[in-house]
Amino acid sequence: MTNTHLHPDYLLPADSRTRAIARSLYEQVREAPIYSPHGHCEPAWFADNEAFTDPYRVLVEPDHYLIRMMVSQGVPFGDLRCPDPAGGEAGDDSARKAWRIFARNYRLFLGTPSRLWLEHALHEVLRLPEALDEGSADAAFDFLAGQLAKPEYRPRALFEQFGVEFLATTDFACDPLAHHLVLAESGWPGRVVPTFRPDDVTDPAKPGFQDNVLRLGDMTGEDASSWSGFLRALKARRRAFIELGATATDHGVEDAATADLEAGEAAALFGKCMARKADAEASRLLRAQLMTEMARMSLDDGMVMQLHPGPIRDHHRGLAQRYGANIGFDIPVPTDYARALRPLLERYGTEKGLTLVLYTLDETAYGRELAPLAGAYPCLRLGAPWWFFDSPEGMIRFREQTTETAGIFNTAGFVDDTRAFFSIPARHDMARRIDARMLAQWVAEHRIGEGDARMLIDELACGRVCDTFRISR
Amino acid sequence: MTNTHLHPDYLLPADSRTRAIARSLYEQVREAPIYSPHGHCEPAWFADNEAFTDPYRVLVEPDHYLIRMMVSQGVPFGDLRCPDPAGGEAGDDSARKAWRIFARNYRLFLGTPSRLWLEHALHEVLRLPEALDEGSADAAFDFLAGQLAKPEYRPRALFEQFGVEFLATTDFACDPLAHHLVLAESGWPGRVVPTFRPDDVTDPAKPGFQDNVLRLGDMTGEDASSWSGFLRALKARRRAFIELGATATDHGVEDAATADLEAGEAAALFGKCMARKADAEASRLLRAQLMTEMARMSLDDGMVMQLHPGPIRDHHRGLAQRYGANIGFDIPVPTDYARALRPLLERYGTEKGLTLVLYTLDETAYGRELAPLAGAYPCLRLGAPWWFFDSPEGMIRFREQTTETAGIFNTAGFVDDTRAFFSIPARHDMARRIDARMLAQWVAEHRIGEGDARMLIDELACGRVCDTFRISR
Amino acid sequence: MTNTHLHPDYLLPADSRTRAIARSLYEQVREAPIYSPHGHCEPAWFADNEAFTDPYRVLVEPDHYLIRMMVSQGVPFGDLRCPDPAGGEAGDDSARKAWRIFARNYRLFLGTPSRLWLEHALHEVLRLPEALDEGSADAAFDFLAGQLAKPEYRPRALFEQFGVEFLATTDFACDPLAHHLVLAESGWPGRVVPTFRPDDVTDPAKPGFQDNVLRLGDMTGEDASSWSGFLRALKARRRAFIELGATATDHGVEDAATADLEAGEAAALFGKCMARKADAEASRLLRAQLMTEMARMSLDDGMVMQLHPGPIRDHHRGLAQRYGANIGFDIPVPTDYARALRPLLERYGTEKGLTLVLYTLDETAYGRELAPLAGAYPCLRLGAPWWFFDSPEGMIRFREQTTETAGIFNTAGFVDDTRAFFSIPARHDMARRIDARMLAQWVAEHRIGEGDARMLIDELACGRVCDTFRISR
Repeated sequence: MTNTHLHPDYLLPADSRTRAIARSLYEQVREAPIYSPHGHCEPAWFADNEAFTDPYRVLVEPDHYLIRMMVSQGVPFGDLRCPDPAGGEAGDDSARKAWRIFARNYRLFLGTPSRLWLEHALHEVLRLPEALDEGSADAAFDFLAGQLAKPEYRPRALFEQFGVEFLATTDFACDPLAHHLVLAESGWPGRVVPTFRPDDVTDPAKPGFQDNVLRLGDMTGEDASSWSGFLRALKARRRAFIELGATATDHGVEDAATADLEAGEAAALFGKCMARKADAEASRLLRAQLMTEMARMSLDDGMVMQLHPGPIRDHHRGLAQRYGANIGFDIPVPTDYARALRPLLERYGTEKGLTLVLYTLDETAYGRELAPLAGAYPCLRLGAPWWFFDSPEGMIRFREQTTETAGIFNTAGFVDDTRAFFSIPARHDMARRIDARMLAQWVAEHRIGEGDARMLIDELACGRVCDTFRISR
Repeated sequence: MTNTHLHPDYLLPADSRTRAIARSLYEQVREAPIYSPHGHCEPAWFADNEAFTDPYRVLVEPDHYLIRMMVSQGVPFGDLRCPDPAGGEAGDDSARKAWRIFARNYRLFLGTPSRLWLEHALHEVLRLPEALDEGSADAAFDFLAGQLAKPEYRPRALFEQFGVEFLATTDFACDPLAHHLVLAESGWPGRVVPTFRPDDVTDPAKPGFQDNVLRLGDMTGEDASSWSGFLRALKARRRAFIELGATATDHGVEDAATADLEAGEAAALFGKCMARKADAEASRLLRAQLMTEMARMSLDDGMVMQLHPGPIRDHHRGLAQRYGANIGFDIPVPTDYARALRPLLERYGTEKGLTLVLYTLDETAYGRELAPLAGAYPCLRLGAPWWFFDSPEGMIRFREQTTETAGIFNTAGFVDDTRAFFSIPARHDMARRIDARMLAQWVAEHRIGEGDARMLIDELACGRVCDTFRISR
Repeated sequence: MTNTHLHPDYLLPADSRTRAIARSLYEQVREAPIYSPHGHCEPAWFADNEAFTDPYRVLVEPDHYLIRMMVSQGVPFGDLRCPDPAGGEAGDDSARKAWRIFARNYRLFLGTPSRLWLEHALHEVLRLPEALDEGSADAAFDFLAGQLAKPEYRPRALFEQFGVEFLATTDFACDPLAHHLVLAESGWPGRVVPTFRPDDVTDPAKPGFQDNVLRLGDMTGEDASSWSGFLRALKARRRAFIELGATATDHGVEDAATADLEAGEAAALFGKCMARKADAEASRLLRAQLMTEMARMSLDDGMVMQLHPGPIRDHHRGLAQRYGANIGFDIPVPTDYARALRPLLERYGTEKGLTLVLYTLDETAYGRELAPLAGAYPCLRLGAPWWFFDSPEGMIRFREQTTETAGIFNTAGFVDDTRAFFSIPARHDMARRIDARMLAQWVAEHRIGEGDARMLIDELACGRVCDTFRISR
């Protein structure tokens, strides 16, 4: 018998005493609303509200975790990609073929969170009655395609069915936000808001930086070719995001470097970068300075700042060239926070108005740097375990390694960080189960009382995320 | 119902079979004497034996953990500091006001060891009958102030009530040890001894290094302006500490660097540092050389050497300038041991007479460097999990990551490392519970027999610490 | 009562529900054949099939773990070494004396895997009826010596009794493989094969590099003084290993550096190294290039490539000079994989024909670099937890930190990596118990179904290792 349907107690601890406590805590937040302040859903889904095309394109193709795992076991990339359905020819069955490959390789995901999210999406959300495997692949494809065609599986209906109260997308600074504008005027009550992600204009090492800066100037009516005009353009563009509901900025950077330069020095550096005369070090220094500028602007306009220093992007450059960015494998490396963040923190770290959420792909920083920092600086909050680590064991390690120094109240609440829309309820459910499990262990071991555990499970499900990301409830 | 009183089984494992074993092991050492070879209590407390002034100043203000956590959640530093009671005006109620803030923020500590230590101090030691929260803050303050005024809560009475058999303070090389001299002649049988912490004369990067060296010369009747005189002065000062009962030295250093220079080279380097002509590298090299000199002297005079390479001190320099050292947030960074200690270990690492205890703030070193080193070099012992890591999960990680390579007998025994006197019994109790828990798991999983577990729990509670720190029992 | 005989459930979880599942999974693979693709047994044992001389020389002296631990507690090295029995004088009792020291120090191993392996070897394999301690040392020595003299304790009989189906030794490139040649012609059906370990000719920093390269040329009839001749010699020598059954190469390197140079540049670099004119950087670059050459040759001849970037070898150089290599303590340091492997992986990482197994002594790389790499590149497999980490907690950490990103199928299967022949069944048994324990936890927590767990335990015991190392079953 295989694990086709999730057990009501999945991920709760095996010990029966602890499980009973965990189940009770979990029940308290099982149906709580979902606040999703950081993710990668397409605003177009909710603006257009069209049916998803087929199960492969909605469940598998956009999920890097799934694609990488199959490739790692020898499946050629090309077999896993489908043409855009709009441009596809009649009778194109590439999605079905790719789905068969996926079903044949489904066992690769045993022991991974992807498997649990998929089980949830397939059987709980989409009501697939039988287990997915090579034999059932075609029937499952047909069944799921039929479900997706139904009105109750359109984006807005799912949004409501999932209990999502707030969903932030991620949008580059120069994005026209067309779908968000449509949504704002649509009358649909779902809160889908943008997040200001200005990497394309704050990191001079990105291709097209200079053009993007000038484009930002055009969008905001500022002369962004000067340092002061550029800063005004950034402020204005942030304002436009805020008007569409944004409460946060998001910064995906190579490392956590920050700087605190004199205005004149910063202006000169900016000029050098705009003139394409900056070397790697100068380019990095301007990026570092712009993180501090972003903090300053956050103090002014109230946007919460998120920082996630990053992996090596596109580790295999040949694959990235052939199949596009985000395909060439992103691989984390050791990350410094304590030294890198010092300039920004010495400048603004004790300001009450600032909130800076830190994520990591280097778990060694949890106990060594991140928890001591967040347990000291008023502006800091620890972002949820992220990317490779938003998994049961990853979440357990996060709590075990940060709580004793930083406590619960310096953590930012769960983020699903996903473009896999159908997995959103499963991801939040997983986080709630793992939090219930940890609190249940504390209660069973008499580290805290049950009343405190009940207060904390609410904080972990909704309180922390709304408080941190300034989301009204 | 909140967790106002600690459960007899707190921190023991939830599984009933394992808990029964753990409880039995814990009972064996619950009342064992406390040996505290590394800490920061004031010798004046025991020399003067005066009553503690008020609950805030004794329980909260000196505890960095508590202050940092409240600051991290937006409480202004200034609201948490009280004037010296000696200099305070009549009717000054700043302690009571700060206590109210503390009580209001008490929930921040849920999930941290501070909470458990506080519960123990408040309810077990000080017999506070009701839970602390915002509503009970004033009544609790009054009750605790009343308790502190009683003879049984004076320092010496508590020392005896806690079952402390040995308590080492931490004292700089030039400290006159006035209170220790008083204690030595007081006739009070409590063993309160100094620890030789010579950072002020062994680290040329410290402010006042040159003056401190000369002062050390004055104190010992040596001409410390020459290398050989300085070494004689160090030896003499160590001897003075030993005469007052010291068994150990303690070295808080920026990194674990050691060196093994020719005598002539060392002398020249010392001269450069004394002449204030040393750059950062030369200064660091002299410090590295002095660690090896300390090891040599330890071989002569038998003092156990403790090394704790450090965090970034005063990460926020502005706060440190405004509120004093130790307030500006200390943040750990990655630490190298294998390469840094090589010169010292190649020189003296296989000498039977030397004991060198290594602490860390970088847990990644446990399994990678520290356990392999301590599981090989005869002189090495692994210091207890320290600072941010003397917590339930921190102690579990320490044992899980070091025992399989270094065993139990290469660990140094628990140190409380605290200036929070009232928390000392709670801290040792916590360590004993966590050790009982680990051994119980081993027994339950048939990794070791119960007889061996009974031998090991004694070693962990008293044997290792007395053996390592050369404390007579 | 001490732990003289292993409990049938040793290392299985304490919780009774989980233990029942774990026991059932373990039973499924308890008697499964042993495939040992990476280890350090002597081929001479099986070629000559002579009785082992005495318990100390076979059980203790060759096991670095045991020697290091005793030295770390002050036992002099010299007391733990015995003269070669061939050269020993009549009546030499140094083995018995060393055995007594070992027995007296047996408690040092409590909590270490060595203790469990020893208990298994002494009581399960060698049928020692009573517990080993200081008092029983002599009787145990005599009993064990008697056992070792029996035919059923000769190497080939043990090989069969242990259920070993495949055993790879480790052999330098210039090793004449004399014992392997004997074995090939012996008619004995046991599969004992060499592994190609060419560090002596691929790392110019090794003493004797130039001579070894020329010797390799002589052995293969190539002029190895030229780059192209050297590459032909390497190919030919690999072929000779393959003819004796080798399926893998093994590379013990200081770090994981790889390079992808133009052929001309590589040839020039090789010339410089052969002329002894290369500095450390050039020497390292040639080694890095040779890793990529090895990958290219693996694509041609099908040998699986193993890479284990290393510790500081002979940390205490004085000990190494006095007592020989491998005695001076090897101490791990932080290790980079993501950047170091990039040249090789960009060149050959997506080739289906290549298998590259990565080991680590830096556990921080598990989740940060190794699992993301292995969960992406088709050529990569994660080597088993290795050296200091092939222990219960080490194996648990490996699975917890790699599975959620890389899954089970990107792991390479267990390797015992030992020269302690008598411990081989215990080591494989330990791995099976720990894997059963993990899978049982997943089943008990409803992360996977029991049917999937049954499939996975087979994969972990035999499937992964045979698939990865291309061993026919």
